[in-house]
Amino acid sequence: MTLPQVLTLDALDALYREGRVGPADVMAQIGLRIDAGDPAVFITRTPPAMIDAAVADLLRRAPEPGSLPLWGVPFAVKDNIDVAGLPTTCACPAFARPAQQDAAVVARLIAAGAIVLGKTNLDQFATGLNGTRSPYGAPRSVFSAEHISGGSSSGSAVAVAAGMACFALGTDTAGSGRVPAAFNNLVGIKPTPGLFSTAGLVPACASLDCISVFSLCVSDGARIRRICEGFDPADPWSQPARPHALPREGLRIGVLAPADRDLLGSADNARLYADAISRAGGEAVEIDYAPFAETAALLYDGPWVAERQAAFAGFGVPASALDSSVAAIFSGAARFDAVATFQGLHRLAALRRACAAELDKVDVLLLPTVPGIFTVAEMLAEPIARNTRLGRYTNFCNLLGLSAIAVPAGFASDGLPFGVTLVGPAFADEALVPLADRLHRGAMCGAGIARDLPLPACSPPLPVEGAQTIELAVVGAHLSGMPLNPELLALGATLSARTRTSGAYRLYALPGTVPPKPGLIRVAEQTGDGIEIEIWALPAAAFGLFVSRIAAPLGIGKLELADGGRVSGFLCEAWAAEGARDITAFGGWRAYCASLVE
Amino acid sequence: MTLPQVLTLDALDALYREGRVGPADVMAQIGLRIDAGDPAVFITRTPPAMIDAAVADLLRRAPEPGSLPLWGVPFAVKDNIDVAGLPTTCACPAFARPAQQDAAVVARLIAAGAIVLGKTNLDQFATGLNGTRSPYGAPRSVFSAEHISGGSSSGSAVAVAAGMACFALGTDTAGSGRVPAAFNNLVGIKPTPGLFSTAGLVPACASLDCISVFSLCVSDGARIRRICEGFDPADPWSQPARPHALPREGLRIGVLAPADRDLLGSADNARLYADAISRAGGEAVEIDYAPFAETAALLYDGPWVAERQAAFAGFGVPASALDSSVAAIFSGAARFDAVATFQGLHRLAALRRACAAELDKVDVLLLPTVPGIFTVAEMLAEPIARNTRLGRYTNFCNLLGLSAIAVPAGFASDGLPFGVTLVGPAFADEALVPLADRLHRGAMCGAGIARDLPLPACSPPLPVEGAQTIELAVVGAHLSGMPLNPELLALGATLSARTRTSGAYRLYALPGTVPPKPGLIRVAEQTGDGIEIEIWALPAAAFGLFVSRIAAPLGIGKLELADGGRVSGFLCEAWAAEGARDITAFGGWRAYCASLVE
Repeated sequence: MTLPQVLTLDALDALYREGRVGPADVMAQIGLRIDAGDPAVFITRTPPAMIDAAVADLLRRAPEPGSLPLWGVPFAVKDNIDVAGLPTTCACPAFARPAQQDAAVVARLIAAGAIVLGKTNLDQFATGLNGTRSPYGAPRSVFSAEHISGGSSSGSAVAVAAGMACFALGTDTAGSGRVPAAFNNLVGIKPTPGLFSTAGLVPACASLDCISVFSLCVSDGARIRRICEGFDPADPWSQPARPHALPREGLRIGVLAPADRDLLGSADNARLYADAISRAGGEAVEIDYAPFAETAALLYDGPWVAERQAAFAGFGVPASALDSSVAAIFSGAARFDAVATFQGLHRLAALRRACAAELDKVDVLLLPTVPGIFTVAEMLAEPIARNTRLGRYTNFCNLLGLSAIAVPAGFASDGLPFGVTLVGPAFADEALVPLADRLHRGAMCGAGIARDLPLPACSPPLPVEGAQTIELAVVGAHLSGMPLNPELLALGATLSARTRTSGAYRLYALPGTVPPKPGLIRVAEQTGDGIEIEIWALPAAAFGLFVSRIAAPLGIGKLELADGGRVSGFLCEAWAAEGARDITAFGGWRAYCASLVE
Repeated sequence: MTLPQVLTLDALDALYREGRVGPADVMAQIGLRIDAGDPAVFITRTPPAMIDAAVADLLRRAPEPGSLPLWGVPFAVKDNIDVAGLPTTCACPAFARPAQQDAAVVARLIAAGAIVLGKTNLDQFATGLNGTRSPYGAPRSVFSAEHISGGSSSGSAVAVAAGMACFALGTDTAGSGRVPAAFNNLVGIKPTPGLFSTAGLVPACASLDCISVFSLCVSDGARIRRICEGFDPADPWSQPARPHALPREGLRIGVLAPADRDLLGSADNARLYADAISRAGGEAVEIDYAPFAETAALLYDGPWVAERQAAFAGFGVPASALDSSVAAIFSGAARFDAVATFQGLHRLAALRRACAAELDKVDVLLLPTVPGIFTVAEMLAEPIARNTRLGRYTNFCNLLGLSAIAVPAGFASDGLPFGVTLVGPAFADEALVPLADRLHRGAMCGAGIARDLPLPACSPPLPVEGAQTIELAVVGAHLSGMPLNPELLALGATLSARTRTSGAYRLYALPGTVPPKPGLIRVAEQTGDGIEIEIWALPAAAFGLFVSRIAAPLGIGKLELADGGRVSGFLCEAWAAEGARDITAFGGWRAYCASLVE
């Protein structure tokens, strides 16, 4: 069978589960696509023997399709990230060196069942946002052979957009994981700095580098991020995540004031940005972009260019081996001495506060990903200034430690794609997912080259502390109208359902409890008709305190419902049943209490 | 009446409440002491009219003694911290400028009822640990006219030790809030960087500068810290506190291995350090000091000297106006370019991980505050090398973002004092208090010049994170080092205690659980020796989510501890014990797992 034009995780998973194709076929068919596609996309292809070994390893570890989260999913890796057995070039042949082991993130993806297709082209040493700074050629946007793909993760973006990979790893220091997403109708997941390990990544600007994910839809990107993320003590820049929640409704969306909307003068882009703002819902709040713009400018105009040079100095590669634009940028390091560097760090500290004051007014920012696109010819004519322009809305993010998701936002009348980016606080990576998905879905522009692709349903985001509710089954004194029900109401809980447990529970009237309480205890077999319960939705933040106040022998475990579902709920320690009256036959606490009154 | 030799908060408060003295008398009597004392201590005295106005203002705001937490408490301020109406000199006459407003911390103290006595001497621009680098003279240790007071907060420490102030503000970048505490038999509170606002502080090394507190006892220091601390958006370096708890018992104390104990060859100091270790109780764990020593060395041997020069460059003061040692240090900035600066920042990032690996083995560090003391003559003979020696055990702290409390640790046979410092994780400032108090109390060396002073009782530490943390007993896969422990760490949980349940529990190895998990089930009678558990403090907001994710047959109930206490913790439904191995005899999951490996 022929693979679809682009490959979402769900689509591929369905093909595998239906037995219509196997991993070896998929790898082979994608190989043919790569053969026929833009030759500038891949720097190194995974050799057939290595693909065969990876497929064999997968089938040995997990023979059943779907038995690993990324079972048989082909992906591409930007060529500044190590894959064991393949050279890492950073698009600089003089740098090329064989990788001894997989980068930490690559290892996680392979463990989850994914298979590496090869290493993709990039702006040399990940220095650029345009995709033309490579001796391996300049990949083009999948929508125009004249236009840049965006960079530095040029090959990774084009590979996914052209159906040459289900997803790809990029990196994002200035905006390299977002700009090429915008130019290829893709989702770009830019995690909070430190959320993904950078062990095995060749540094560009080490304190700011993030590995990123290109995917066809937000759902795929979020699923892949969850596999990639995790604290790594071997990476000095890794941080333990402290998930940040966002309000479920009434979101305040920070947007550019009209005067700040630099969109290369394109009325189409201005309309597409305004449309995205409308689609976001919530309350649009104009922010002062000045401190963000100044922060963005620090990255190339400030001492951070010396951080790039500091990494390059360790590679043992002569400057003469560099692309001319990259060489010009690295040589800018000499403009800064140590005093100027600390002055830059201090200015950043002050700007961080100024930006925080703006961010405090909103829940997220919704920005154009880029002002607009350039042709390759335009880019080569003015390689530094136009690159700076591309980074206007991205370069501040990592200096401020923020999370971001770039999503497609439709097409201009010239057939070229436009994108927008949601920027959230540190560790809002998960919390951004629902809005990012809604924005993409509402743009009605498919994904990658498949402009008519129906987007797969986005799996619900992982619950994030604070913003979420937790369902709790109550069985006794917390039922509606019972003496402790006001405790639930005071916490802002709402009644979700009235239902019954499965038949595996017995209910006891616990002696000496004030107010009187029952104890629900599970037995090994389904022997009864179940016990009446109510399910209440509590704010997650309040739930913890509620649980901590429950006295023995009661506690919170998982209850099996009559319909086979599971929910957190009140249980009783078994020892407390000794001497307690078994009231299971009443079917519930309410009926038992009524019998006492009668 | 005559004031006591030194002035604790409690002693002064008692005098005020008993009506035996008023604030104007106290200020006058202390003024006479300052007149009669070491003339190098104060650079600027608060003029009498300004004192009168401050007293009048206090009596208008809060007529009753004790009606503000620092009612009528006289304090001294290091002369790099602004006090409105007084000049700020930084011990550099060419820099001197009138302060327009109080530094943020000074304003908090005045609002709490305290009264400024004057501005104290320091190593110029807070650059030094010895107290000899000032044109205003070199204050001496209160115990020897030949010996240095320590610096850079020289005058502040001597003022408190000599009864010229109840407490004083110092600053601490390398160790300036701790070294002079050691040389004057005082407590030095070095808050976590960012806990106190640095608004109104003249920067030395801005990213590392902390305002600090000298006090006679830990109780006073903690009370003053609580008033000073708090997030300040006007200070780019301010951080919202995330209080860190320490285990209540079974503390693991990191100490120097014998080979690392550089104590200037003094057998007395070696004994005093060993005594402090014994006094600390808990479990002494020798750590590898090498990464801490390398971090400490970065401060003056690495690019951070350029951060000092960056601040100085903004002052408009000619280098010719500098103390010769300070000038030599600032001029060292020229050794570093921007590339070297980023290399230094990267080295620090790697060292932070290496130090974290050592810190993970312990709960706190207990270090000598200084190797030993020098005479003024020795110091002047070798001003740079000996200063470096003084910072051996302090200079790493702010580079790693740690909290610390320096306390007196007794006297050598030559009559000179020795000190030790407790170093804790970021925001353990409050959690360090009980152990710091115990260490000081056990040293039986009074405070400041009053070597026989009975130390006032230390008020109990504030509950850490107050109602916002919930304690959770874990018994299996969530124990330290076990597979699910990272879940707790990711939620920001900290270990509170290692203890046992009462004898009423049985432990079962639950079949088929991945990772393997035990089930703790209570029985009706106390029949065993209890089961090993760890108690972790979780942020309340995270606790709810954590509970909601626990799968049957496990849940959260209340556990009875060996000491009769109760705590939320993991319990198992009794039905799950059917067919499970009873492993109660092992005493805990860790011992059972170890038996499987053997």
